[in-house]
Amino acid sequence: MTATPSTTTSILPSYLAGSWWTPENPQRSTEVRDASTGELIIRVSTDGIDLAEAIEYGRSVGQRTLGELTLHERALKLKELALYLTEHKQELYEISFRTGSTQRDHYIDVDGGIGTLFTFSSKGRRELPNANVILDGATEPLSSDGSFIGTHVHTRMPGVAVQINAFNFPVWGMLEKFAPSFLAGMPSLVKPATPTGYVAEACVRLMLDSGILPEGSLQLISGSARDLLDHLDYRDHVVFTGSAATAQSLRTHRNVIEGGVRFTAETDSLNATILGADAAEGTPEFTAFIKSVFVEMTAKAGQKCTAIRRVIVPHNLIEPVVSALTEQLESKIVVGDPRAEGTTMGALASVDQQRDVAAAVQRLVDAGGRIRLGGAGPVESDTDAAFFPPTILTFDDANTAEVHSVEAFGPVTSVIGYSGAPDEAVRLAALGSGSLVATVCSNDADTVRAIATGIAAHHGRVHVLNRQTAKTSTGHGSPMPHLVHGGPGRAGGGEELGGVRAVKHYMQRTALQGSPDMLTAITGVWHAGASANTVTRDDVESGTGVHPFRKSLESLRIGDQFASELRTVKLEDILEFAEKTGDTFYAHTDEEAATANPFFPRRVAHGYLLVSWAAGLFVEPAPGPVLANYGLENLRFITPVTYDDAVRVTLTAKQITPRVTDEYGEVRWDAVLHNQNDEIVATYDVLTLVAKTWPSAAD
Amino acid sequence: MTATPSTTTSILPSYLAGSWWTPENPQRSTEVRDASTGELIIRVSTDGIDLAEAIEYGRSVGQRTLGELTLHERALKLKELALYLTEHKQELYEISFRTGSTQRDHYIDVDGGIGTLFTFSSKGRRELPNANVILDGATEPLSSDGSFIGTHVHTRMPGVAVQINAFNFPVWGMLEKFAPSFLAGMPSLVKPATPTGYVAEACVRLMLDSGILPEGSLQLISGSARDLLDHLDYRDHVVFTGSAATAQSLRTHRNVIEGGVRFTAETDSLNATILGADAAEGTPEFTAFIKSVFVEMTAKAGQKCTAIRRVIVPHNLIEPVVSALTEQLESKIVVGDPRAEGTTMGALASVDQQRDVAAAVQRLVDAGGRIRLGGAGPVESDTDAAFFPPTILTFDDANTAEVHSVEAFGPVTSVIGYSGAPDEAVRLAALGSGSLVATVCSNDADTVRAIATGIAAHHGRVHVLNRQTAKTSTGHGSPMPHLVHGGPGRAGGGEELGGVRAVKHYMQRTALQGSPDMLTAITGVWHAGASANTVTRDDVESGTGVHPFRKSLESLRIGDQFASELRTVKLEDILEFAEKTGDTFYAHTDEEAATANPFFPRRVAHGYLLVSWAAGLFVEPAPGPVLANYGLENLRFITPVTYDDAVRVTLTAKQITPRVTDEYGEVRWDAVLHNQNDEIVATYDVLTLVAKTWPSAAD
Repeated sequence: MTATPSTTTSILPSYLAGSWWTPENPQRSTEVRDASTGELIIRVSTDGIDLAEAIEYGRSVGQRTLGELTLHERALKLKELALYLTEHKQELYEISFRTGSTQRDHYIDVDGGIGTLFTFSSKGRRELPNANVILDGATEPLSSDGSFIGTHVHTRMPGVAVQINAFNFPVWGMLEKFAPSFLAGMPSLVKPATPTGYVAEACVRLMLDSGILPEGSLQLISGSARDLLDHLDYRDHVVFTGSAATAQSLRTHRNVIEGGVRFTAETDSLNATILGADAAEGTPEFTAFIKSVFVEMTAKAGQKCTAIRRVIVPHNLIEPVVSALTEQLESKIVVGDPRAEGTTMGALASVDQQRDVAAAVQRLVDAGGRIRLGGAGPVESDTDAAFFPPTILTFDDANTAEVHSVEAFGPVTSVIGYSGAPDEAVRLAALGSGSLVATVCSNDADTVRAIATGIAAHHGRVHVLNRQTAKTSTGHGSPMPHLVHGGPGRAGGGEELGGVRAVKHYMQRTALQGSPDMLTAITGVWHAGASANTVTRDDVESGTGVHPFRKSLESLRIGDQFASELRTVKLEDILEFAEKTGDTFYAHTDEEAATANPFFPRRVAHGYLLVSWAAGLFVEPAPGPVLANYGLENLRFITPVTYDDAVRVTLTAKQITPRVTDEYGEVRWDAVLHNQNDEIVATYDVLTLVAKTWPSAAD
Repeated sequence: MTATPSTTTSILPSYLAGSWWTPENPQRSTEVRDASTGELIIRVSTDGIDLAEAIEYGRSVGQRTLGELTLHERALKLKELALYLTEHKQELYEISFRTGSTQRDHYIDVDGGIGTLFTFSSKGRRELPNANVILDGATEPLSSDGSFIGTHVHTRMPGVAVQINAFNFPVWGMLEKFAPSFLAGMPSLVKPATPTGYVAEACVRLMLDSGILPEGSLQLISGSARDLLDHLDYRDHVVFTGSAATAQSLRTHRNVIEGGVRFTAETDSLNATILGADAAEGTPEFTAFIKSVFVEMTAKAGQKCTAIRRVIVPHNLIEPVVSALTEQLESKIVVGDPRAEGTTMGALASVDQQRDVAAAVQRLVDAGGRIRLGGAGPVESDTDAAFFPPTILTFDDANTAEVHSVEAFGPVTSVIGYSGAPDEAVRLAALGSGSLVATVCSNDADTVRAIATGIAAHHGRVHVLNRQTAKTSTGHGSPMPHLVHGGPGRAGGGEELGGVRAVKHYMQRTALQGSPDMLTAITGVWHAGASANTVTRDDVESGTGVHPFRKSLESLRIGDQFASELRTVKLEDILEFAEKTGDTFYAHTDEEAATANPFFPRRVAHGYLLVSWAAGLFVEPAPGPVLANYGLENLRFITPVTYDDAVRVTLTAKQITPRVTDEYGEVRWDAVLHNQNDEIVATYDVLTLVAKTWPSAAD
């Protein structure tokens, strides 16, 4: 197996319906060339491709194989895949040089993509249930007697996730969409951009060769997507990254407009960075700001949808910023073949891109922009090489429409001035009509608050840079798998990443209404009010019932319940607890003051006393499958308990989450404390670790 | 003031940019007639309307006035509005009879609408912060030293919420969109459907006359929306309810496709109800099923987007279902003028609707449907009255395409058969290509689970009906403000309601990255690692610092912090705690067994001991502004504490939520326990009630 196709004149294969495919006699094909040398690498064609079959294959085989796994099992596969790709990443680096990328760029694309797999694997197992249904939000009581309730679930969409990617990040751009859709259980049909599709193909080949992926969970279209959307309907999801023009054409497809195909887009935007009035020359913020703009201009030769296109600085700092940037760029940037010694910035992806960037720079110049560094011409006269120099423009009029609307998708940025007032910076940033990200660079909290809250609704991400974060920031231009990526308006209106939020993009949220029993049956999570298998201390002692703490994870069932006897709280218990813990708050110790408190009848038991006693009431002391109580959630004290009241606790197995890689799992218990009048005293969830098996357990 | 326009030949006014408006010399107008009598009620025209001005007014004045209020203040106004409308609902009932609605229908529309305001008011104050920024999800660590972190916020969209409503629920349909957008802080521009716009106008008039609404927060277009979308951009949100055809035409508008206008639609769908094989005649489920179909056919004369169009029953139950339904309809339904004595079902909204429904029934008949009750003709020969009889069709072939695609928007339903196998019911339900809601009626948990999980991704809501919920269910057809309303595919792909989920539809989610200090400054919520104003017991005792528990809500600041001294845990403390609480779990009491446990070094302190001691370490015992500890959240035990270890607690004011209607508010405290080696032992949030002012407090 090799990650590269065998000959440079062959057609790049697609992977469809379980096998590799190339057109037999393509009528036409597109040539793909090395960005730095112009050398022909591969041809691309999808003449005769059967996309209807591919969609149907995903909907049938992919849906079935993915559905046989739980969320945690799929998450674990993402980790295995990440480890496999890590072993093979050198192959991807080597092929990626041909796209004009430097080794530093490969780290962003290849390692960044693998890192995204790791993060989704980890978040999937830590933050999602080991099941196929995800509960969303709290239970809603819908009848006064509790017999009719509501909740929400996410279940996977029953179609195919079509992922149309941009040319700039053939690996990361694919994996950041694949990871959440795979985790959600939706089969992926990947369509990379033609200029760098051979890198994506190499990565897909590795992923398939790994043997880790279930059949039908990943397909690849190498080349034009042709009639793809004609075959989609409301069960499918198209996730697009690329130009606004292409997004618009997809968004007007009949099956999106009429057929309910879910469509989200992430398009390039004119991202801004704003320097606060406090961040003058000599401040750590000024230094960090220059470094940030330098990095965003030169990483991937500025071909990043998140790159900084608009540098908004106080009027008096325009020249210092231009000088400092120029100095950095001139001293550190050597444009050339990324395989050549000393190169620090590679080529654009193609000569087409080079032509587009030059044209955009010319439009900016025509609109009044002054070129302060670089410019419209290619670096070398060699017309087969797609180089472009770092380019800085300044504008006398910060309101110039083109500054806020013309994107040069290369190492090009415009510097404009503002008064230093946060409101003006907000107004200028908003002229971008919706962006992926903006940086606010300031060490003044009021400035940061005013600008960040002012621009938030115009952006998918706001990055604050100051002396505290200069060294540790992950950068303006780097979408993190943990955080939402996308933005309103010009940025496409879509949302990607953001941890488990992204998984839910590939699922349908549905409200469920019914009895607690039926909602328990549907969700696999016990709902308060549902039937329970109750045992008491008497049952345990007489041997007629098994305490749920004596059941291993494998024998424990949702609804297994322990109901304690009542225990009376005496005044001396409260006073002693106060003395021993040191919690001598007046509500527990001073009868007069407690009675004067609006919430208490007289001296009351500590909430902590009640939950401690509850543990004493439900505990099963001898070693058993319950290994530890690792936490507690959503504790609410409802009715105060005063002396001579009594409390009892009911503990019910609510959710069981076996870990895929450990010999134990998590059990969430519903705990309710009642008093002697059957009023609810407190409710909470007890979180425990329980062994999967236990030799002497009830199983 | 009267809720009805003065003369029947006048033009229905709009409310724009702060005043009522009618066209001066309308070139043309639409006549609106009483559904039962054909009497002319009003004319509708928007000739010469200036919608650009209205949009700009909302974006400037409405945004400003709403932005001056917090989420809780806006929530309280919704309650005031609900109370005001409750006082005046008789006026709305009276005018609503003209739409063909019965008093029972008014309860759905008018009382349902008012109830939605109450629910959003209550949820807004209970579930959202008293602020303008809503945090979303947990903090994400992005650097190993904690200096760079991420989080997400929702901030309100900076434009106008354009709400285009359907004719069937002029009050509820308006208020269910208005409530969440108002709460989110987005000004509303309401465009009711022409046939019943006079009811919406009456309601808007009451809302404005109440004096409760901030200027610019509500505008009304009575009539055609004309060039409305031409003036919108990515800052605005169009929320549409109505026909799929109109949704499609709006969705293709240039400003939606290219301009980033956020657009969501809720369209009619062919909702199904499924009878389980277990629910034979004589079962409580069969009875509940018949009643449910009966209600959905006749409420609002079947003009509900959620009404049941497809009745899917086991083959052997088709005839029993048709018979039982027919008997109910024939014995209980009297079609007529809703103002007439004895009428139990009113008219369709207009003779146009009557014609459309008759045509749809004819299409169903042409496709093989047999009319079993009612039929294509109007009830009376009076052509000005829009009556239509309850109509049942059956089909020999359950797969007939028209059954699953032709909607008769009236008291019309189709009964089809299936084998009784859950898979087949799922397949038939999914032929609706996406629906708002489906009912599963069965008392068999396996059947319910199989059908509900199978159809979930095709539906926005799944309603389970069985003997437990027959009396308490809120019904198949009633969207609840607590639960999501909307659905994929044919149902429009949108989502409305669902409690605070709906509020977030009118907000932009933005990722924030920066230092804990800066994220604290932006969000107003303290983030771990941010600066704190720390006092110790020594500071308090020497008078150099004020314990944060001695500060009232008005003087307390985010970041006010108390840091305790260390307290050593002795073995006897653990053993005594075990004895007193009864929690004699072996990890606390049996050295050998504890040491064998994979998580503990030897006997350890109870988690409950640690949090109880922590309270003792941070407490300020004397009466003060802190009134009660009402709960605790997200408790996690990180490092076990064994005997001779020591613990200290740091408590920091994290979030302050003054209640708008009480003399106190909520303070959430960040609590961290460390041991003598500065390792984190436990983290949690302590929830307290704190008085707004306190005479002897530090303020």
